[in-house]
Amino acid sequence: MNEFELIDAIVDVLDPVSAGGDIVVGPGDDCCVTSVPGGHQLVSSIDTLIAGRHFPRDAEPFHIGYRAMMVSLSDLAAMGADPHMAMVALSLENLDAQWVRSLAEGMRQAAEICGVPIAGGNIARGALSLSVSVHGLVETGAAVLRSGASAGDAVYVTGALGGAAAALEQKFTEAALRQRYFLPRARLDLASQLRSWASAAIDISDGLLQDLAHVAKASGVAIDLIEAKIPVFPGAELRHALEGGDDYEICFTAAQAPDFDAVEIGRVVEGEGVMIDGKPVDPRGYQHFA
Amino acid sequence: MNEFELIDAIVDVLDPVSAGGDIVVGPGDDCCVTSVPGGHQLVSSIDTLIAGRHFPRDAEPFHIGYRAMMVSLSDLAAMGADPHMAMVALSLENLDAQWVRSLAEGMRQAAEICGVPIAGGNIARGALSLSVSVHGLVETGAAVLRSGASAGDAVYVTGALGGAAAALEQKFTEAALRQRYFLPRARLDLASQLRSWASAAIDISDGLLQDLAHVAKASGVAIDLIEAKIPVFPGAELRHALEGGDDYEICFTAAQAPDFDAVEIGRVVEGEGVMIDGKPVDPRGYQHFA
Repeated sequence: MNEFELIDAIVDVLDPVSAGGDIVVGPGDDCCVTSVPGGHQLVSSIDTLIAGRHFPRDAEPFHIGYRAMMVSLSDLAAMGADPHMAMVALSLENLDAQWVRSLAEGMRQAAEICGVPIAGGNIARGALSLSVSVHGLVETGAAVLRSGASAGDAVYVTGALGGAAAALEQKFTEAALRQRYFLPRARLDLASQLRSWASAAIDISDGLLQDLAHVAKASGVAIDLIEAKIPVFPGAELRHALEGGDDYEICFTAAQAPDFDAVEIGRVVEGEGVMIDGKPVDPRGYQHFA
Repeated sequence: MNEFELIDAIVDVLDPVSAGGDIVVGPGDDCCVTSVPGGHQLVSSIDTLIAGRHFPRDAEPFHIGYRAMMVSLSDLAAMGADPHMAMVALSLENLDAQWVRSLAEGMRQAAEICGVPIAGGNIARGALSLSVSVHGLVETGAAVLRSGASAGDAVYVTGALGGAAAALEQKFTEAALRQRYFLPRARLDLASQLRSWASAAIDISDGLLQDLAHVAKASGVAIDLIEAKIPVFPGAELRHALEGGDDYEICFTAAQAPDFDAVEIGRVVEGEGVMIDGKPVDPRGYQHFA
């Protein structure tokens, strides 16, 4: 059983309790969306970052805390949700006072940058990991989903890609790239503009191709990228921008050119899957097709 | 640095971002409470259960999933909140299909019993742990806090205590006790009645004395228990009922006798700390004082 089959099995078992009632959007988007009173919807996500898997075990504690918070908040940005609050469940093996304070300072700085309060949490002894639950609010129906792209829309990205993946590959030897990996910025600054302009959106966490494949599938369309237009982070290569994750820029579709900085990188067309210059690519292994 | 100092250090660092704005009740109660539109408040908690620490590593996967969900939902019951939705972040080392399906079936059953949808989640490879984020709603000001007890209130508990702790001590050899540990029932059936009757409430997760010490401290009062009145689960002993956790009954204070099943076990009085029959006890080590 691979991880995709694993997720399918769990989603299948939980299906009877993950739809209906107050659930507007269940598992399968960046966030779930639920109806709350007062004409609003709650937009929520939970993410776990595990040492040695989602970040290097010897990373600076400040970076670990900062990044865990930002990575989760990025899911709210992708939905165009205004942040409401975050909660953090920490599993810590290291009880060194300075280390733990630095971890908390990283979380605090990320929360301050995004203007989101950390309302609660939980601490346990165990292998180092951080689960962050984030919650935003939108007026009913205003959340930007993966499923809203239509043929004819253009595809945009909010910044250069590949920096974080290049940093990881180079084992963090280059400062600007290292910062791109460890100090990402959730694009909550664009939340309200995404609500106005975007027909669909996703944050680039797993890589442009893989993430856009989710949008294409959820929307029942194909996405055709123009290779020459994809903005590559200085010091990174095109393959990092296409396949590397961890950048946390937002990729979105829109029927009209938006009034904020974003680079047009392709079109939504009839069909399925992701293409580059009209040629289908396998999002999970682009290099094999290069 | 012990765990209490650790928590204090983190709370201290996060203090600037864990108050104000939409936060009504920040860290320190069973749940945090935040203002949402429409005259309501969101009541939220996150808990992580780690294999080998919060449940036996070789426990049945159904029990692991069921109990993780119930333990988290119990925090909503303690606040008198009606459940809105839950999210689950799983860290799994075991990808055996039947094991994983059983885990999900346990989560589903707990969710069905409590009538709470599982709206989203996340799965990662790592040491076995489950982080569950739960969310309820109350009308503004209706949540039952730890801080509301007044001298003169009586103290009640919603069921017999000590069964789960006795089960753990006996290494789960006795069926009824084993069930008490692995298949607890979050008392969400009493949420609306607790809102009507309780001045303060907490769920018994760490042990009656330790949990009531939190209520006494938050309310600025003392609590005097009557030893002979404490309901002890069949097969357990008084020490399990006083010091054992994991029962997930609700202990609450009220100015008037409630109209639902609950056992009066003591009084709220002026002063501080927890007493039994008028004698102060150390909640963290009652046995040493016995």
